Amino acid sequence: MVSKEEMIAWFKSEFPQARYEIEDFTTDSIIVRHRVEERDLRPGGTVSGPTMMTLADTAIYVALLRQIGFVALAVTTSLNFNFLRKPVANADILAECKLLKLGRSLAVGEVSIYSDGDEAPVAHAVGTYSIPPKR
Amino acid sequence: MVSKEEMIAWFKSEFPQARYEIEDFTTDSIIVRHRVEERDLRPGGTVSGPTMMTLADTAIYVALLRQIGFVALAVTTSLNFNFLRKPVANADILAECKLLKLGRSLAVGEVSIYSDGDEAPVAHAVGTYSIPPKR
Amino acid sequence: MVSKEEMIAWFKSEFPQARYEIEDFTTDSIIVRHRVEERDLRPGGTVSGPTMMTLADTAIYVALLRQIGFVALAVTTSLNFNFLRKPVANADILAECKLLKLGRSLAVGEVSIYSDGDEAPVAHAVGTYSIPPKR
Amino acid sequence: MVSKEEMIAWFKSEFPQARYEIEDFTTDSIIVRHRVEERDLRPGGTVSGPTMMTLADTAIYVALLRQIGFVALAVTTSLNFNFLRKPVANADILAECKLLKLGRSLAVGEVSIYSDGDEAPVAHAVGTYSIPPKR
Repeated sequence: MVSKEEMIAWFKSEFPQARYEIEDFTTDSIIVRHRVEERDLRPGGTVSGPTMMTLADTAIYVALLRQIGFVALAVTTSLNFNFLRKPVANADILAECKLLKLGRSLAVGEVSIYSDGDEAPVAHAVGTYSIPPKR
Repeated sequence: MVSKEEMIAWFKSEFPQARYEIEDFTTDSIIVRHRVEERDLRPGGTVSGPTMMTLADTAIYVALLRQIGFVALAVTTSLNFNFLRKPVANADILAECKLLKLGRSLAVGEVSIYSDGDEAPVAHAVGTYSIPPKR
Repeated sequence: MVSKEEMIAWFKSEFPQARYEIEDFTTDSIIVRHRVEERDLRPGGTVSGPTMMTLADTAIYVALLRQIGFVALAVTTSLNFNFLRKPVANADILAECKLLKLGRSLAVGEVSIYSDGDEAPVAHAVGTYSIPPKR
Repeated sequence: MVSKEEMIAWFKSEFPQARYEIEDFTTDSIIVRHRVEERDLRPGGTVSGPTMMTLADTAIYVALLRQIGFVALAVTTSLNFNFLRKPVANADILAECKLLKLGRSLAVGEVSIYSDGDEAPVAHAVGTYSIPPKR
């Protein structure tokens, strides 16, 4: 199992410009914060869909790597995304991920996305990763 | 809001042959049990996919009607289903549903399905219902 | 590659009670007909959701086995289903499947479902199968 | 019905920096090209997931607006995305969209994404838009 410190260090080296912070990091729940900036916003004052989808995908990746280690070749095979409410513009967004399944070749994660400070989810995602066979 | 007793009575009159029992019935969680019988099984000793998908859809329907009343015309518009593990043959299956969104014209529910007695979900679903406009 | 005759024979021996007929059977398109009977119908005169979902899943299975042979252990891992229109009650339903991907461990198929005689699809599905590693 | 010229003009004024070109524009098929640039790429030489997901969403939006006119309030409610193959880095990506359903309050579109010059799709999406009631 990867520790929170190892994950943070790895993330920094792999995605130096990413505006993510790993907040929760346990078997039951991974929470990743995305620091929302101007360029993430859409006209009308809301966080863009791609920003949320990328965060959801990242949260599943973090939850998966926590269990299997830094397997660079794990790739997303599907992402099912539901937009539930308009996120507010002046708040970070948080993704909470639970792994529903961790099989030998497939992992499935479920993600709820929140505007920081709000209880009702703004989006929900279910994503699947393909895990390469061990050599 | 519909009471548990009203829901059970309505269910019995609408779906007299259904083998469902409403166990939990709160805002945060709806649990519906399906009493598994021989005809629900697949060769190899497992509960069939359609049995699980129908239960998931039903659980969202129950969660939705609890909030909006017995609106017969609410219809499923999408069901996204992930099969996670083989359910065991000799146990009932339970669906736990949370409504992620209840809008004026759309509701989104999330469902985890379990074999009775097991903690790991055997399937997960996200479904959408269209709610007819009020006349 | 499996021939149409081999597929029909295999289907008959594996699913003797199934009311399916394989109509089209080429690399580009698989069409499976489901002979609708009384028990497939829902009040209001329409084909039930589970009947359509089962047919969609079957059509992907047929398209997949056509390519990889009779691998009994290929299992559905996800099914994403959209209900588009009410199918009519007095017509068979037809599922047309295209394989979007056939990888070593994953296959993805897309299915449109029609009421026989109608041009507008009544439902659409995307499903994923996990293919067991070759021994 | 919106003409191709009207759509192109509207797009330019609404999304001046977008690198999209509308190629096909008929009832049966909408094709939108995304001119891939350095910033769309991922390490390993492939087009990023968010770039493809945004293009898929845009193609459905174009197909929908073509039918209903420039209704600014149509919003994506779900996007189901399957990653099929690695797109190549040195080619544009093209999204071909078909509207599966155009109802009063919901539209469903299906999209295949290709690397320009390749026949096998690199991704597939099904998305749903909510259409605001007419005032």
